[in-house]
Amino acid sequence: MNKTLLIKNIGILQTPIGSESHRGEKQGENIKMNDAAILIEDGIIKEITENGQLPSGAENADTVIDAEGNLVTPGLVEGHTHLVFGGYRQNEIPLKLAGATYLDILKAGGGILDTVRKTREASFEELYEKSEAFLDEMLALGVTTCEAKSGYGLDLETELKMLNVVKALDRNHPVDMVPTFMGAHAIPEEYKGRADEFIDLLCNQMMPEVKKQGLAEFCDIFCEDSVFDVAQSKRYLLKAKELGFGLKIHADEIEEIGGSELAGEVGAISAEHLIAAGEKGLASMAAGGTTAMLLPATSFYLGKTFAPARRMIELGIPVAIASDFNPGSCPSLNLQFAINLGYLRYKLTPEEILTAVTINPACAIGRGERVGTLEVGKQGDLVIWDAPNMEMLCYRFGSNLAMQVIKKGILV
Amino acid sequence: MNKTLLIKNIGILQTPIGSESHRGEKQGENIKMNDAAILIEDGIIKEITENGQLPSGAENADTVIDAEGNLVTPGLVEGHTHLVFGGYRQNEIPLKLAGATYLDILKAGGGILDTVRKTREASFEELYEKSEAFLDEMLALGVTTCEAKSGYGLDLETELKMLNVVKALDRNHPVDMVPTFMGAHAIPEEYKGRADEFIDLLCNQMMPEVKKQGLAEFCDIFCEDSVFDVAQSKRYLLKAKELGFGLKIHADEIEEIGGSELAGEVGAISAEHLIAAGEKGLASMAAGGTTAMLLPATSFYLGKTFAPARRMIELGIPVAIASDFNPGSCPSLNLQFAINLGYLRYKLTPEEILTAVTINPACAIGRGERVGTLEVGKQGDLVIWDAPNMEMLCYRFGSNLAMQVIKKGILV
Ligand SMILES: [Zn+2]
Ligand SMILES: [Zn+2]
Repeated sequence: MNKTLLIKNIGILQTPIGSESHRGEKQGENIKMNDAAILIEDGIIKEITENGQLPSGAENADTVIDAEGNLVTPGLVEGHTHLVFGGYRQNEIPLKLAGATYLDILKAGGGILDTVRKTREASFEELYEKSEAFLDEMLALGVTTCEAKSGYGLDLETELKMLNVVKALDRNHPVDMVPTFMGAHAIPEEYKGRADEFIDLLCNQMMPEVKKQGLAEFCDIFCEDSVFDVAQSKRYLLKAKELGFGLKIHADEIEEIGGSELAGEVGAISAEHLIAAGEKGLASMAAGGTTAMLLPATSFYLGKTFAPARRMIELGIPVAIASDFNPGSCPSLNLQFAINLGYLRYKLTPEEILTAVTINPACAIGRGERVGTLEVGKQGDLVIWDAPNMEMLCYRFGSNLAMQVIKKGILV
Repeated sequence: MNKTLLIKNIGILQTPIGSESHRGEKQGENIKMNDAAILIEDGIIKEITENGQLPSGAENADTVIDAEGNLVTPGLVEGHTHLVFGGYRQNEIPLKLAGATYLDILKAGGGILDTVRKTREASFEELYEKSEAFLDEMLALGVTTCEAKSGYGLDLETELKMLNVVKALDRNHPVDMVPTFMGAHAIPEEYKGRADEFIDLLCNQMMPEVKKQGLAEFCDIFCEDSVFDVAQSKRYLLKAKELGFGLKIHADEIEEIGGSELAGEVGAISAEHLIAAGEKGLASMAAGGTTAMLLPATSFYLGKTFAPARRMIELGIPVAIASDFNPGSCPSLNLQFAINLGYLRYKLTPEEILTAVTINPACAIGRGERVGTLEVGKQGDLVIWDAPNMEMLCYRFGSNLAMQVIKKGILV
């Protein structure tokens, strides 16, 4: 293992600055250094130079990488995934082409309940190996920190199994993992028609046990018509807050039922999806300092409209962009594709998008002090892109433009 | 170099059959063999077996690959690219975000004219190396045969340079190349307002010279409002026919000006885009036996509607799907993403899509006798997918699911 790594000949080093989320006009604030170099010592950024200068001690670096005039950014921070799951759902395609709705498929035992069944059946090892392979691919695509939610168990045993997979990945895999408990992802078959009782179970048994075992930092709930309503979501989130979890909420994805309003009201660190969010909910989020965790590849896959990202920036809501990787509504783990959609569909600028996949998600998963920007004292997580500038990352799609990924000062 | 290659333990071997394009109900006709094996000798398929049987002579195969129960299909046939070009156009992004239209950018010397300028400036070697890298990536994504058009020169010297790049790639690269002359891609600055004179130049000088040098098999033209009109397109295509070229036409992408009608009338082998094609044009194509070369990633990138693929199948038009890789309207070379869109946006079945990326484009680029299906006597071009079935290729997106690509019986 090398002690010091020097990356020289960086065409543009582009990064947001600071350890707080960027909102409003600051969403697009990046610094750009030309002909830059960066020295990482023991995994931590020691010095950054520009205009052809080299860091002091550069000549003694253990490893030297030539960026060949390319763009360097912070490692991407993936702020929203359902990484751990059993099975896949490709076999629903013929049903969908024949006109079956999501509800038809769910009634036939498919949809999320199919994933729950297969996740319950899968062993820890099976889930671990599958998730590890996904994570390898995400790392190759430039992701160096990744949030992952439970929520395909819906019983204590399986929820713990999922969270233990995330814990083991965090220990063994170069990517840093941030675990979220999402027992309130759906109502399991055995609690059909008894959502309130299931919320009781989550609040009184599962959530405290997850806390006790230290397996999650955040709690998340799917607040949506015919899943969990606003009152249930509030009860769940306030319990989570009481136990010391950070709060997240899948809000206003399909119908505007008040989830984004609740997010601001309870001080959620992020609200997810927000495709249908209206002015009242957005105002509440802005007031509560809640980050909008936008998931454009899900809109793409489902053929839906896209969240009002520009309006959110206008209102001073920090915007983050994540993949939402999951086997139902977004079978893609490719955060670079979400970057393309940030430009093509949200009409964000390349600078706003860089903020949305680095410091803003980092803050929304409690890692803003450590990652999400390239600054002295932060972790040496970065990507050397096969691209001269951020515009190229927005423009080219369908190819992996990450040329070299550095995690804690090590080429992975 | 190995003489014989055996691929065994194929979960499903799925392929269309025959050397002709598949239309109407036949669009979705694939055969599926379970627990199959395939023996390739000197690059040609010698025997295919199923139900756990092995080909005769299997025990003496020089190389054996275990497909581990995965899906095997014919190598993908990429029927429409503008592979060879100078520069990129990512720097138009800030202009576009500020509201500039394509015409604004063109007037400022950008758009396709920028690519023409950079392609004229680039050396043969520069263009070759850049295209070769693209082709490497396409091969890794499962493409084993690829059409490529000229059309960023718009002068004889540069058009020949582009076609010579394609010729050299065909000689040196594992992917088989099919060259198309598309001098009529745009009106060059020096012929501004004199489209008819430029058509004269193309018909009287460039096209005969390309023919003489044997550098293209097809001629293609961009028939579109404010580019080349139907009369000009007809003159160009009839001259091409007289010289012995196959005919292609970019038709009805933006406005329905009669391009698809002309395609059927002149017996074009394919018409491209067809987003705006109406019933009259489609009827003409059906009568003329013209393949619809659909380019869904371009619709995606431009945020447009999608061509009426299902209606085309109903009308008995053979449907093919291609990437349209080019630096302006589709900076993606990923044919797997076009497969995803074939399902998500065109609502084609997995079987119809397989036909659309194998035998139908093969026939539309004059290679139906040699590739596009897995049958005894055809070239040993195939893909072993990290997938149990075609549904998985339609469903997962953003990841390269091609596990191993075999070209002429060799693992590449
Ligand atoms: Zn989610
Ligand atoms: Zn084209």
